[in-house]
Amino acid sequence: MKAAVVMGSKSDFEVVKPCLAALTKFGVQAEVRVISAHRTPEQAHAFAANAQQNGIEVLIGVAGKAAHLAGVLAASTVLPVIALPVQTSMMGGLDSLLSMVQMPSGIPVATVGVNAGENAGLLAVQILSLKYPALAEKMKAYKEEMRCKIEKDDAELQKQI
Amino acid sequence: MKAAVVMGSKSDFEVVKPCLAALTKFGVQAEVRVISAHRTPEQAHAFAANAQQNGIEVLIGVAGKAAHLAGVLAASTVLPVIALPVQTSMMGGLDSLLSMVQMPSGIPVATVGVNAGENAGLLAVQILSLKYPALAEKMKAYKEEMRCKIEKDDAELQKQI
Amino acid sequence: MKAAVVMGSKSDFEVVKPCLAALTKFGVQAEVRVISAHRTPEQAHAFAANAQQNGIEVLIGVAGKAAHLAGVLAASTVLPVIALPVQTSMMGGLDSLLSMVQMPSGIPVATVGVNAGENAGLLAVQILSLKYPALAEKMKAYKEEMRCKIEKDDAELQKQI
Amino acid sequence: MKAAVVMGSKSDFEVVKPCLAALTKFGVQAEVRVISAHRTPEQAHAFAANAQQNGIEVLIGVAGKAAHLAGVLAASTVLPVIALPVQTSMMGGLDSLLSMVQMPSGIPVATVGVNAGENAGLLAVQILSLKYPALAEKMKAYKEEMRCKIEKDDAELQKQI
Amino acid sequence: MKAAVVMGSKSDFEVVKPCLAALTKFGVQAEVRVISAHRTPEQAHAFAANAQQNGIEVLIGVAGKAAHLAGVLAASTVLPVIALPVQTSMMGGLDSLLSMVQMPSGIPVATVGVNAGENAGLLAVQILSLKYPALAEKMKAYKEEMRCKIEKDDAELQKQI
Amino acid sequence: MKAAVVMGSKSDFEVVKPCLAALTKFGVQAEVRVISAHRTPEQAHAFAANAQQNGIEVLIGVAGKAAHLAGVLAASTVLPVIALPVQTSMMGGLDSLLSMVQMPSGIPVATVGVNAGENAGLLAVQILSLKYPALAEKMKAYKEEMRCKIEKDDAELQKQI
Amino acid sequence: MKAAVVMGSKSDFEVVKPCLAALTKFGVQAEVRVISAHRTPEQAHAFAANAQQNGIEVLIGVAGKAAHLAGVLAASTVLPVIALPVQTSMMGGLDSLLSMVQMPSGIPVATVGVNAGENAGLLAVQILSLKYPALAEKMKAYKEEMRCKIEKDDAELQKQI
Amino acid sequence: MKAAVVMGSKSDFEVVKPCLAALTKFGVQAEVRVISAHRTPEQAHAFAANAQQNGIEVLIGVAGKAAHLAGVLAASTVLPVIALPVQTSMMGGLDSLLSMVQMPSGIPVATVGVNAGENAGLLAVQILSLKYPALAEKMKAYKEEMRCKIEKDDAELQKQI
Repeated sequence: MKAAVVMGSKSDFEVVKPCLAALTKFGVQAEVRVISAHRTPEQAHAFAANAQQNGIEVLIGVAGKAAHLAGVLAASTVLPVIALPVQTSMMGGLDSLLSMVQMPSGIPVATVGVNAGENAGLLAVQILSLKYPALAEKMKAYKEEMRCKIEKDDAELQKQI
Repeated sequence: MKAAVVMGSKSDFEVVKPCLAALTKFGVQAEVRVISAHRTPEQAHAFAANAQQNGIEVLIGVAGKAAHLAGVLAASTVLPVIALPVQTSMMGGLDSLLSMVQMPSGIPVATVGVNAGENAGLLAVQILSLKYPALAEKMKAYKEEMRCKIEKDDAELQKQI
Repeated sequence: MKAAVVMGSKSDFEVVKPCLAALTKFGVQAEVRVISAHRTPEQAHAFAANAQQNGIEVLIGVAGKAAHLAGVLAASTVLPVIALPVQTSMMGGLDSLLSMVQMPSGIPVATVGVNAGENAGLLAVQILSLKYPALAEKMKAYKEEMRCKIEKDDAELQKQI
Repeated sequence: MKAAVVMGSKSDFEVVKPCLAALTKFGVQAEVRVISAHRTPEQAHAFAANAQQNGIEVLIGVAGKAAHLAGVLAASTVLPVIALPVQTSMMGGLDSLLSMVQMPSGIPVATVGVNAGENAGLLAVQILSLKYPALAEKMKAYKEEMRCKIEKDDAELQKQI
Repeated sequence: MKAAVVMGSKSDFEVVKPCLAALTKFGVQAEVRVISAHRTPEQAHAFAANAQQNGIEVLIGVAGKAAHLAGVLAASTVLPVIALPVQTSMMGGLDSLLSMVQMPSGIPVATVGVNAGENAGLLAVQILSLKYPALAEKMKAYKEEMRCKIEKDDAELQKQI
Repeated sequence: MKAAVVMGSKSDFEVVKPCLAALTKFGVQAEVRVISAHRTPEQAHAFAANAQQNGIEVLIGVAGKAAHLAGVLAASTVLPVIALPVQTSMMGGLDSLLSMVQMPSGIPVATVGVNAGENAGLLAVQILSLKYPALAEKMKAYKEEMRCKIEKDDAELQKQI
Repeated sequence: MKAAVVMGSKSDFEVVKPCLAALTKFGVQAEVRVISAHRTPEQAHAFAANAQQNGIEVLIGVAGKAAHLAGVLAASTVLPVIALPVQTSMMGGLDSLLSMVQMPSGIPVATVGVNAGENAGLLAVQILSLKYPALAEKMKAYKEEMRCKIEKDDAELQKQI
Repeated sequence: MKAAVVMGSKSDFEVVKPCLAALTKFGVQAEVRVISAHRTPEQAHAFAANAQQNGIEVLIGVAGKAAHLAGVLAASTVLPVIALPVQTSMMGGLDSLLSMVQMPSGIPVATVGVNAGENAGLLAVQILSLKYPALAEKMKAYKEEMRCKIEKDDAELQKQI
């Protein structure tokens, strides 16, 4: 099971880290790349066009501002593409979000929240879990973990007050 | 291959239609439901919790305004959930979009554009194609179709000018 | 007289504190809980569904981003639910605000301003005061206190200039 | 049981109608008034200041644009005040919404969605139900009605597809 | 010549300071007050209603968030009222700005930019200059001063580069 | 007593009409002009620079989109300049509003609401009333008229319900 | 002198028409194409990469929503690229505008207003006029024409009032 | 080859620096000026009107808030004018952006992203490259440089993980 995480600039790596952590936690292999839709357009096209035969099963495009990366990847592959918008000073990343989510008819990307690196990784896992049922089981365990974490937080709060 | 399309109100059906058309075009069986996160919360929970054993492989939540449906479904399943925000008078649907895409860490939904019914359907197909490779081939043909359509539009424009 | 303050994450506790202070100041008992609409959906449903028989008379849901908590609580109770949106980096909390206030017809929540913890508490007091007239008298005294505070600020300013 | 519905201009009456319908449906007496925070400020103050002794138990302020009415009413009463923002051409009513919901600390209003007349009425009913338990029972029946309506819509959709 | 500067909270004083500086620079007497539209509504009404007979010729209302102060003052006087919106975390003060500028027909306020204290003061001077022609002459000198300042900045930049 | 109403395009005349009606109602002479900040910049400068000696006492700049007209007029006169932003398709005129109200320090304009033609006229009257006390008396009568209108609307509503 | 006008979908042609009219008026040859950044990505790349040797001197990319077209063209050419955002229902085209104008460092596009087809054409003419001085002379005449048009509108308005 | 960079206030110089660096890197001579559309309107007009005969071939207007500078320059020249909006606290510079990009028909400016100084400079270079083909060659080299930089970042990331 293999995902590709493509960021438009190495400065996006902080947002990518929790995404990688999520993929790793679930045992999904991650190819992490810096490829820019605008500065290395041919590499972006080639990477997406060859992704399937290189064993990649889902792509995650990470970019900010006029964030075209996920859309550009989606244009050149039939694999599902997750879009992870990066926070900016322009209304907290509304530019990144709208540039990603408002794709024209025919070429969808699966957009998660601004700076939501962990969610991008988890969504990739959920998508992969259709093919790899073991991931679905792990995801159930993870949900259980989250449930316990909230219940523990709740219990601790009761002591604290 | 089976997807569920859940809308929060039957008034969302116009936005759902192109989504159904896309699923049907690719031979994906669609269960279409009206279930409200707020008016029928137990049904929403039950539907999502039982989706996997009912053979559903991907869910599409369709809602407007404070659009909690996709998030509520995602809370009760490990299947991938696509969020389709419906246009409103509040800034063209920004309320629906933000209510869906900005999910907290741990529970992602795969958000498409406002009123982007076709894209919600196509994204479901792309997700299913990991498990059903024939869908990937059909998607390549669909992309080729789109390419031809644009080229035909371009050719006609040349005559017209 | 008893209110429940439910936050979606323990990180929301800073916003909850002035809410608790307001409830305490008026002698309203407060049950404070960490329950997540998405990570512990069944607890959220159960908590709201049982609130009335547990002696709770008003609920306050505190959450940020795609802030579904208040709506999810309101879906499972007929008690009044106050929504307290938490500030985020996305336009200062516009995502939290719209996710709460734009509830579909039939399931209202009573939304206060972003991070307006004190106001959430005071609104709970005002709602409870219908049943407990002593609260209304205390609220009049509180308004008088605020009036005096402003007049004192005004008087001090006159000296300062 | 008595609520007051105060609109800033008679042009807001269309938004008020579903609010009245909701109050009437639950047997809540409604005093409906046109009083402007800016054009009849003394009446607005007097109305709010005397509301309690006139038997009013909850107020609903309805206004658009720089919608000060709910806040102005709240300044002169300790009764709970519901704010119903009216849609405008400015970003679909964001001006009305922010002018209402972002009240300063000390003077909350309970804001519902833009043009959400029915929800304003239902919220008033929920607030009144603390004192009048019969309303809570009626509200449970109403919720059941909504549940049935959604299930009927769902059933009809199944036939239609 | 006398202006009143009314702020809704003493925390607004930082924004008021450049406003006072501008008034003082032009020899306009300033009455500076802390009066809240919501916490001291009667004082706000009385202050505006009596402003004219107290020798005040222009009012400046300074407030943030659901900033009703300028509108509330304008409701009770025929003097021109300047509205100075204070920056907030909600989209940089868009809530304050819209709450002030979008006044209903019949009761205008003269809104300046967010946190634009100096401009509020200068606008008061320009308004007063209709009656006190000496102010117009001083304003011409001030504009000349600004011109010289820009030209000096420009000259210094030439040396610096 | 004389005001100038300058619109950037003749298509703004619909918004100007209620402004003229207000000025006329109060007996203020109005010079109405089409002068564009961008298409006739020298005329705009000349008009503002000569306004005072041409007997004009207040200017009203009416424009939409990147609405520079009021600012450009204010740059070349010391008379008070009212800015009337015209509604556009971009978020209901937020572009026009921000382009006007957010003037840099030193050059204020007195901004009214989007499409608020009547308010622009009334604000001009209030500004002129400092010099022409009869206008203040007329404005009091107008406020009384508005009060009666609201009371009449209220009375009629009582019959209607 | 030759410009290319590339639209992402033939539905953008209405916005393109005034752009073509402007180019034609100034005698600039226009190649008009339908090429989609997402549906025909290779053609988009090839068109931009070959534009210079095909005699094109400036490109105009026309697109809506997640409007990547201008950026994708700019990635593959050193010619200046003008971005013309198309109006959408999402806040009047703010999605199109931000997707175009907020390009990352290194790859600028020259963005004009939403639906500003004529301005896109005129900007192309101004850019070309550096190389073709006759265009600058024509542009001066066009500015004079605009000046006369405004003055005529102004004169007619004087008669009309 | 000569560009003019005009900033409305010397406080904009930080945003101007990367613009100058880009121009200098490509050997384009830059005249850098502080000229305010509002504080020195006659200089702004004169500078633009004389730019062509002073050997300037492209102008860059840099301003924030109600950013009229680029539009004011464009009104008085037929040279292409680039608009560089400066970040503000109002939604991250949305005021500056809309004040610049939404120019009325007839007077375009070529807007780049908020604080995008380098892009303003590079766009000027691309515009100049039509007349000075050597610049186009340098720009190709610069694009190659960017490509190598991204590839190097990518290679380093591979080692790092």
